[in-house]
Amino acid sequence: MAIFKTTYRVMWSDIDAAQVVNHSNYFRLFQRAEEEFYEYLGLGPGFDYFTERRIWLPRIEVFCQYKAPSSFGDTLEVSLTIMEIKKKTVKYGFVVKKKDTGVLVAEGYVVAMAADKRIEKAINFPSEIAKKLKAFKKCARM
Amino acid sequence: MAIFKTTYRVMWSDIDAAQVVNHSNYFRLFQRAEEEFYEYLGLGPGFDYFTERRIWLPRIEVFCQYKAPSSFGDTLEVSLTIMEIKKKTVKYGFVVKKKDTGVLVAEGYVVAMAADKRIEKAINFPSEIAKKLKAFKKCARM
Amino acid sequence: MAIFKTTYRVMWSDIDAAQVVNHSNYFRLFQRAEEEFYEYLGLGPGFDYFTERRIWLPRIEVFCQYKAPSSFGDTLEVSLTIMEIKKKTVKYGFVVKKKDTGVLVAEGYVVAMAADKRIEKAINFPSEIAKKLKAFKKCARM
Amino acid sequence: MAIFKTTYRVMWSDIDAAQVVNHSNYFRLFQRAEEEFYEYLGLGPGFDYFTERRIWLPRIEVFCQYKAPSSFGDTLEVSLTIMEIKKKTVKYGFVVKKKDTGVLVAEGYVVAMAADKRIEKAINFPSEIAKKLKAFKKCARM
Repeated sequence: MAIFKTTYRVMWSDIDAAQVVNHSNYFRLFQRAEEEFYEYLGLGPGFDYFTERRIWLPRIEVFCQYKAPSSFGDTLEVSLTIMEIKKKTVKYGFVVKKKDTGVLVAEGYVVAMAADKRIEKAINFPSEIAKKLKAFKKCARM
Repeated sequence: MAIFKTTYRVMWSDIDAAQVVNHSNYFRLFQRAEEEFYEYLGLGPGFDYFTERRIWLPRIEVFCQYKAPSSFGDTLEVSLTIMEIKKKTVKYGFVVKKKDTGVLVAEGYVVAMAADKRIEKAINFPSEIAKKLKAFKKCARM
Repeated sequence: MAIFKTTYRVMWSDIDAAQVVNHSNYFRLFQRAEEEFYEYLGLGPGFDYFTERRIWLPRIEVFCQYKAPSSFGDTLEVSLTIMEIKKKTVKYGFVVKKKDTGVLVAEGYVVAMAADKRIEKAINFPSEIAKKLKAFKKCARM
Repeated sequence: MAIFKTTYRVMWSDIDAAQVVNHSNYFRLFQRAEEEFYEYLGLGPGFDYFTERRIWLPRIEVFCQYKAPSSFGDTLEVSLTIMEIKKKTVKYGFVVKKKDTGVLVAEGYVVAMAADKRIEKAINFPSEIAKKLKAFKKCARM
């Protein structure tokens, strides 16, 4: 199973009054890893590939378990895997660890749907993307 | 089953470039409903009751399904229920609807743990809170 | 000078690790007051009036002085005034106080420009809006 | 005048419904540059130096002019300078440019105050920090 990894340095504005990264911000981290993943697949910069085609990837289901707090100054390693690809949806798996100690911070998944922004309806993933996602899913660990 | 309801008006800064409330922000909405719920239980304002006792309620698991987008100008009704109370954890259920149309926007749950901020360890919920949560869970629909 | 007032209850996610509302969030509060102000002027809900006409109000200059911290559980009163209207720009003044004590928390201003989203250029404020803003500026204190 | 430079890649969650980085987020960028600056001065990681001494640097005044929009996928270069050091305050200057084109995006300043978190009062900057800030201010362009 291929894994796409990226790192993120926790900013002051990511942490809340409990001095730890607010739980909602992990979903922003996941989204950022996804952004970088599509760029890695050659579909960037930004979501240019998607916006040019008026394709949008709204989330339809998310889940996260929090295992250890992370705080200001931590560098986090976020790993993305493709857990499942269907015609209209993709399920990403995410694992967040502290980069220096390897401590598991959080793990979860996000299911996103391909949608046409003009008609606001689910569509099949364009074959070009589906191919890339499937190839990534199959390829050996990077 | 008792339901605690609150409303929230979507701000410009809640919505992302897809013109809809960013999926991560629903967890902020859930947290806000929880804040107001504890105030309703007489433990507010703010989390005063908790901070005075150095009790902290870190999230250990969250889940959300997104059913329809919401956008700038919408007023959302957020319902909170107590799904389960254990010695050290509480599981809240959340349902988000558009207030004027009743359209289901999102539903999910959040499991929070009672923890002592000084020793950073899980603790039993203080009996006073446990009682209030159980009483709320049992009481007839409000 | 007319003053438009609105209130906001500080959420957990507004405060940062110093236990106070993060300074950047006051600009979100200002924006929220502006949203409600346009709705008060009959141009809502949301920014419907503006989006239908592809008008956009990007900020070109902002300023804020912080006088006292505010924290979780505080209810803030945000006052908006029209300090200046020019052909293409409007300067809003903002004052934030704690609602229960009247303590001054922050004051500042925001200069926004009318722009056409299609051509990404500054435009004159539509006369309908300019009239409403000028009328509000002149009217006696509400 | 010495300049400390850092870069930031705009994330989806930084941009608002107008498809551009929300104006309030530039203050988060400034804060992030400040964080990295103190780390560069040997006072990191995080704000460890400050938190250990219960010193806090609340903002007392901020200003920003927005010159051009930036959006998802842009890499921004944030430059920090020390404009002024007084006994209890420091004034940072910030300039944000697009890294690849050099286009000026925003410029502004932030005045922060040294404060003792326990007594919630302004204090003199510890001499160690004051020396480092003054040395940086004086040194030739890096």
